[in-house]
Amino acid sequence: MFFKKAWALGIDEPRKFFHCLKVGVALMVVSLFYYMRPLYDGVGGSAIWAVMTVVVVFEYTVGGTLYKCLNRICATFLAGFLALGIHWIASQSGHRFEPYIMGISLFILASATTFSRFIPVVKARFDYGCTIFILTYSLVSVSGYRVDHLLNVAHERLSTIIIGTCLCIITSMLIFPVWAGVELHLLIPRNMDKLATSLDCCVADYFGHDDEESKEGLKGYKCVLNSKASEESMANFARWEPAHGQFNFCHPWKNYLNIGASSRSCAYCIETLTSCLDSKNQVEKSIKNHLDSACMNLSTSSSNVIRELATSVYTMTRSSKIDIAIQDMKNAVIVLQNDLKSLPDLLIQTQYDKEKKEADSSEIIVMPLMEVIPVVSFASLLIETASRIELNLVKAVEELAESAEFKQPEDEIKANHNKTTETIVPNEENTIALQRV
Amino acid sequence: MFFKKAWALGIDEPRKFFHCLKVGVALMVVSLFYYMRPLYDGVGGSAIWAVMTVVVVFEYTVGGTLYKCLNRICATFLAGFLALGIHWIASQSGHRFEPYIMGISLFILASATTFSRFIPVVKARFDYGCTIFILTYSLVSVSGYRVDHLLNVAHERLSTIIIGTCLCIITSMLIFPVWAGVELHLLIPRNMDKLATSLDCCVADYFGHDDEESKEGLKGYKCVLNSKASEESMANFARWEPAHGQFNFCHPWKNYLNIGASSRSCAYCIETLTSCLDSKNQVEKSIKNHLDSACMNLSTSSSNVIRELATSVYTMTRSSKIDIAIQDMKNAVIVLQNDLKSLPDLLIQTQYDKEKKEADSSEIIVMPLMEVIPVVSFASLLIETASRIELNLVKAVEELAESAEFKQPEDEIKANHNKTTETIVPNEENTIALQRV
Repeated sequence: MFFKKAWALGIDEPRKFFHCLKVGVALMVVSLFYYMRPLYDGVGGSAIWAVMTVVVVFEYTVGGTLYKCLNRICATFLAGFLALGIHWIASQSGHRFEPYIMGISLFILASATTFSRFIPVVKARFDYGCTIFILTYSLVSVSGYRVDHLLNVAHERLSTIIIGTCLCIITSMLIFPVWAGVELHLLIPRNMDKLATSLDCCVADYFGHDDEESKEGLKGYKCVLNSKASEESMANFARWEPAHGQFNFCHPWKNYLNIGASSRSCAYCIETLTSCLDSKNQVEKSIKNHLDSACMNLSTSSSNVIRELATSVYTMTRSSKIDIAIQDMKNAVIVLQNDLKSLPDLLIQTQYDKEKKEADSSEIIVMPLMEVIPVVSFASLLIETASRIELNLVKAVEELAESAEFKQPEDEIKANHNKTTETIVPNEENTIALQRV
Repeated sequence: MFFKKAWALGIDEPRKFFHCLKVGVALMVVSLFYYMRPLYDGVGGSAIWAVMTVVVVFEYTVGGTLYKCLNRICATFLAGFLALGIHWIASQSGHRFEPYIMGISLFILASATTFSRFIPVVKARFDYGCTIFILTYSLVSVSGYRVDHLLNVAHERLSTIIIGTCLCIITSMLIFPVWAGVELHLLIPRNMDKLATSLDCCVADYFGHDDEESKEGLKGYKCVLNSKASEESMANFARWEPAHGQFNFCHPWKNYLNIGASSRSCAYCIETLTSCLDSKNQVEKSIKNHLDSACMNLSTSSSNVIRELATSVYTMTRSSKIDIAIQDMKNAVIVLQNDLKSLPDLLIQTQYDKEKKEADSSEIIVMPLMEVIPVVSFASLLIETASRIELNLVKAVEELAESAEFKQPEDEIKANHNKTTETIVPNEENTIALQRV
């Protein structure tokens, strides 16, 4: 059972498998400091710190490794420096007071650093550094009372840590690197695609155009709802990464989080939409048929906008078709609203026919509004989803395009402008027609 | 700026402040192993491991500390044992092959352990143990090649780690303990209360009964949406905690996660409800007034159910009023549905009046359905929220009550049964009446 799961994971994501081999390789290399005598004599007995550093610091993504490495080096340096300084002050005040001064300073610094870890910004960026700061300070200050060659201890620890971290950074960056930034850059459009598929499947399911495939696609929005934590940790790690591929050092990772949040706000709507699926059979067929084409059209054009935005984020290119797609979506909203407006006509018409037969009935005409309510609220949720796409998602992607300086697809526009405008629309209609059959 | 934030945090949550002092105290105590000569001679130079253990293992909650302590001890023991065994096998095969055997075994074990960390269950419960396993194995196996008194190293490391972990466990459990289980037990009802307030405020805002307070309460559902990660980590830690207070060792913490998930599913609905607030002024006053009392009644009775459930979870007592509250909510749904049904009457009535004045108009009567749609979809979202409360939240709390064996409020029922049934209903009506004025 356990091995089956592990095997499935390895087949699914070979990069995780490579990560494990990388950890093994890094540990093997650092062991050489022990196995080979000349290297061992070079750094002395504290080579153990290099091994420890590799084990503790090596993370799946380059950003994670860099975050821990830089935190570890800086915190060790800072704490070592501080401990030496306070130790010097303590030693000036005589041998008797030394342990008291060191103890009290340890207490104050440890408490203050632990406290700072509760502050969200510190927690997100320097959590590991805080631990290492307390660790190093207590190790140096405590062994300072015993070990006379204090400078040596601090120096050796720092140099072995630097050896360990350099090894980790080199291994994680050169052998099949997994960049947190790239992961985030891929995750966001993938989630947007899932959202689009969910929306399509949900509406298709409601109007009875569903098949086996759409049953699976329907659940896609759940991934979007649950990906907040992983998006945030990736963005945190991505901040530490140097320029790589299409991303420079100051790439606006924060904007990706905004897109993620906007996707989630659409996902909330879709989640509410799916609950309408339970009541889909309560609505009379004729009423559903009346709104069918407009709803399908709106969902197709909405998901088209989402997919267009996803492609734009993925390729880091401003989309030439996005304005047309948004206009399509807006038109689809208007068509649906018109269909909603004409819904009473349909109902009253039937009512009228009845009246003619019964002739001069004095009763007040009661419309079967209750039968319309489920489909009306479904339609208005669909309109709400479209408006969230337009107001939140489009805006968030626009902001990213602005700050990340997305490429202009000028050449494409000139060459393909006429083609594209002509080809999208029939394509869309084709899809609707196909789904309706 | 930084200090202001820190100060605000300290005032807000004094327990966090105590936690920092606890870390300081634990570090001071463990330093005594260094400062006091008899203790130092007892454990030898490896007292440094005790200091390290305290720094690395001490967490905010008792569960977190126990998780790390147990993981650390077990992983150290297992890895040390394994390393000694393989070292013995390697030493049998001659001095020349020893480093190769040790190196390859290190590579395989490190890779396999790193791989196992990708499996969600292992990640949740034994992540720290995996790190420590690799760490100890590499330390013992690598220093095994150099240091002859290998058994001593393993033994000293284990005993100092046990000293450190015991110190941490005692400090975290005896001085102002923060139990992850209690935190989770408090968080879930608190979030439910926020949900209830949000629902009330949202509906009050829609119908124009809002004041300053309700503007603040409206945002409460956002806490519910964002608390998934913290709920899960608390439930993870709570699993490690021994019996404390009302909770025994096998308390069903998983059920709390279910309640959290159900709260979130209600929060998605409320999130969609709040988006209706933008369109609240589009609806004609007369139509809104028609549904006002029914909607307010439904929101009050729904939030009453949520609060009743929250109290039940908080006090770990089955609620005697919950059935009445659910019935109230169901009745409110029926009233709202009836009001929706009679909505066309209202509209057609006005239409009729017009007709009488114009006399014998042959035009088809067109109902202003578009004007009704916003309020109709608002009402149906409200009904959906109520149904989610009934289907998900009530069920989840019921399951918790079942598995955690909530107390029966039998005495209360017998004594106050007549009283309570009489007092709730007028109270509720009072609130509605007050809000309407």
